[in-house]
Amino acid sequence: MKNFETHFNSPSNFQELSEARDLYWSDILSRSALAKTIMSGDFDKRLYAIYLIETYHYVIHNPRHQALVGVHAKNAPFNYVKFCYDHANEETGHEMMAFHDLLSLGLEKNSFTLDSPLNSTELLIGYLYYVSTTGNYLRRLGYSFWAEDSYGYIGELIGKVKEQLSLDHTQMTFLVSHSAIDEAHSAEIESMLNKYCSSAEDWNEVNRVMYTTLQIQALMLDEIDSEYQRIKKGEDSRYSFLNAIL
Amino acid sequence: MKNFETHFNSPSNFQELSEARDLYWSDILSRSALAKTIMSGDFDKRLYAIYLIETYHYVIHNPRHQALVGVHAKNAPFNYVKFCYDHANEETGHEMMAFHDLLSLGLEKNSFTLDSPLNSTELLIGYLYYVSTTGNYLRRLGYSFWAEDSYGYIGELIGKVKEQLSLDHTQMTFLVSHSAIDEAHSAEIESMLNKYCSSAEDWNEVNRVMYTTLQIQALMLDEIDSEYQRIKKGEDSRYSFLNAIL
Amino acid sequence: MKNFETHFNSPSNFQELSEARDLYWSDILSRSALAKTIMSGDFDKRLYAIYLIETYHYVIHNPRHQALVGVHAKNAPFNYVKFCYDHANEETGHEMMAFHDLLSLGLEKNSFTLDSPLNSTELLIGYLYYVSTTGNYLRRLGYSFWAEDSYGYIGELIGKVKEQLSLDHTQMTFLVSHSAIDEAHSAEIESMLNKYCSSAEDWNEVNRVMYTTLQIQALMLDEIDSEYQRIKKGEDSRYSFLNAIL
Amino acid sequence: MKNFETHFNSPSNFQELSEARDLYWSDILSRSALAKTIMSGDFDKRLYAIYLIETYHYVIHNPRHQALVGVHAKNAPFNYVKFCYDHANEETGHEMMAFHDLLSLGLEKNSFTLDSPLNSTELLIGYLYYVSTTGNYLRRLGYSFWAEDSYGYIGELIGKVKEQLSLDHTQMTFLVSHSAIDEAHSAEIESMLNKYCSSAEDWNEVNRVMYTTLQIQALMLDEIDSEYQRIKKGEDSRYSFLNAIL
Repeated sequence: MKNFETHFNSPSNFQELSEARDLYWSDILSRSALAKTIMSGDFDKRLYAIYLIETYHYVIHNPRHQALVGVHAKNAPFNYVKFCYDHANEETGHEMMAFHDLLSLGLEKNSFTLDSPLNSTELLIGYLYYVSTTGNYLRRLGYSFWAEDSYGYIGELIGKVKEQLSLDHTQMTFLVSHSAIDEAHSAEIESMLNKYCSSAEDWNEVNRVMYTTLQIQALMLDEIDSEYQRIKKGEDSRYSFLNAIL
Repeated sequence: MKNFETHFNSPSNFQELSEARDLYWSDILSRSALAKTIMSGDFDKRLYAIYLIETYHYVIHNPRHQALVGVHAKNAPFNYVKFCYDHANEETGHEMMAFHDLLSLGLEKNSFTLDSPLNSTELLIGYLYYVSTTGNYLRRLGYSFWAEDSYGYIGELIGKVKEQLSLDHTQMTFLVSHSAIDEAHSAEIESMLNKYCSSAEDWNEVNRVMYTTLQIQALMLDEIDSEYQRIKKGEDSRYSFLNAIL
Repeated sequence: MKNFETHFNSPSNFQELSEARDLYWSDILSRSALAKTIMSGDFDKRLYAIYLIETYHYVIHNPRHQALVGVHAKNAPFNYVKFCYDHANEETGHEMMAFHDLLSLGLEKNSFTLDSPLNSTELLIGYLYYVSTTGNYLRRLGYSFWAEDSYGYIGELIGKVKEQLSLDHTQMTFLVSHSAIDEAHSAEIESMLNKYCSSAEDWNEVNRVMYTTLQIQALMLDEIDSEYQRIKKGEDSRYSFLNAIL
Repeated sequence: MKNFETHFNSPSNFQELSEARDLYWSDILSRSALAKTIMSGDFDKRLYAIYLIETYHYVIHNPRHQALVGVHAKNAPFNYVKFCYDHANEETGHEMMAFHDLLSLGLEKNSFTLDSPLNSTELLIGYLYYVSTTGNYLRRLGYSFWAEDSYGYIGELIGKVKEQLSLDHTQMTFLVSHSAIDEAHSAEIESMLNKYCSSAEDWNEVNRVMYTTLQIQALMLDEIDSEYQRIKKGEDSRYSFLNAIL
């Protein structure tokens, strides 16, 4: 499987969508430079810090484009629109968990600025705004479907990071809260998908967005690793200020 | 006081904003052609029907521009942003109350279409989108402040309509739910205003939007009356289909 | 004729649209407080200054919402879309003519700020964004149709202002360039209307926007007069800084 | 060099930006599956057809997001804003060249629909809307810089396609007009960059967008190749209708 190609049997129900998610994750993790670095154990806090910074950047936008789905879903069932606003409400401020975890690594609050994200992070943000304001109004669910239930896929990596960096759980509030299988929330996304996806086109668009956002996330993970390798080698990087936490 | 002029002491706290609201309403009602028609008793169901149609048109947009405030309020306190999404959630589908009341007057469901609103109704809609996506992020509260707590001002008119048309309360679900002093909701708007308006500029912008939207509403009430007078005289009107409910 | 009512025979071709424009202007001027003030001769430079400030505020947005018509006119003929972008190009920077005329009255360039427009000016701006991004993609032509060819209607008023304030033509660059019958431009708007308005709905929507924007302009003219009367009486006004040019 | 990483000396002037463009293109072409397929000669008209379809999809949006730059560039120099609208004007309708070339391959006009683009094509579209409406107002120039002057890089590939498929130049109107070194247009983009990029941040953002859009284009070229390989193998594809032109 190469980037941005989604050919296998297109999912046509929730079960098949779940299987596609398994497949995409397994493909991504098998190719991920970041996963390799983590499993090798050859990394320090700066890698986790860069991950948290990029997470901060894209997570700020989650409630905004989630709300925009509601605004643009003109003929959607009221309960779906209400879900969009309710979910936007819930997601508001979650970037502060990533920010909190970042500070917990030893950075002084006003010693740095977070101006703009890495290229692939910005790509993820921009694509999600487009997805949320055009086309099939259900399709952003394909992003929620993986983004809010990833512990099963990255739990091992999280464990390795925690152990290697001797982090306690107060330093992993974002990953813990977002990756843990939040059963209530997962159930809500599943319920939305099952209630409102009623055509092959619906499932296709949800799958397209799940696939594409997962691919961009994979690019982001690689870019995080690459940026880390740069500061490790002492090369010029916007994130050189992280040397302060070594 | 003429249209679109707001000169008296600008409010600088909640008490003064409330007083300004009293003043604007009293000015509007004293000049309202619709209020005159209602108090004269010289009207039938078609007048109420036109009011419900225009209400349907603008109420559809309330949750949308309410949510857009949250999307655009980049540096706002999280609780204000969450209020925006939560409020959008609550407002979703309220236009169906106006539609229900309309059908209750005796219209067949598919015997008519509601293509586009009257001029002033569209003006209200357009202005609220602009207010919600530009400028001071608190200012849309000036609209909520009057729109969700108007029973004290129009209760007498509502009573007159109810009596004259022999309506029961199941035919006035929109007006009853929206005009009744919803104490919880009013308290929430008051709380937002008191918590987050912290400068003269904030109060000014809230006042500006309260004033301007009330003025446009006044124009809308006049246009409703005018459209009613037209069908009453048998003149050409987009709402001639309402003759079916006489 | 009252505000925001458009009942007479709806125009169904260019000739009838022109006649409607005559009618609206004549109604507006007969009721205009600003026109009365000007014809009475009882005014000074501050009145013209306020007019220029409000003009500056709304004219900045003209190219922007003009371009947005092109962006949103998904199925429009290419020549119409091209006209939108071309027209946006031409309109860019025209607010500087109003600003230039304002400075020519004797204000120091950095002695004042132009923070936000009057209520009705902002209403005009907001409505035009809505009109330009929703509904019939031809309808903004109803605004261009009067806004770019108004000399015939307000030429006498302009003459009176010029004479009373002893202005030379370098102090009236905005009004001269925008009100003079720009034959080429007028011909272009006429050509767009005749080429692309092909249904009663098209003409109706163009007429609706012509009518509504003219009415808001009328409100703006009244508000300008009212603000002038306030500073003349020494009452509190955001425009008190204009006393410097007396 | 891996995807979405832009580390080499950041360009700080036009010359360095041009060198970066050379580098990115050379990296892309060396890894491109589509380039490999073309150079191998093992392809037929369907490959070119898929390329034209994806081109049609993204080119429709070019004038729209180009115009949006002008709308959002609030404090930009007038000449830059005017360039945006003017350029939007010029780009309007160019997708019809790709459509024309597609029909010239032997498809019946109404025998197919072009519903939605491939994943990476949609990613390019969505990212460009985001880039055009947020952040540094100059940065979309990084896209124009390569998109309108690519003949030097892909001329050899175009030549190979032309020869292999025995196409005449009337069947390559899009590639010829867009890839040919349009000296006037190139000079205009160069002039904009040199006139308005005045800080390291400006050059960085232009470079970021040049790099990222080139990378997404590379993904798109790969996805086009992959889709072609599928229909060649008789696998299920949305583009199976292209078998008609064999």
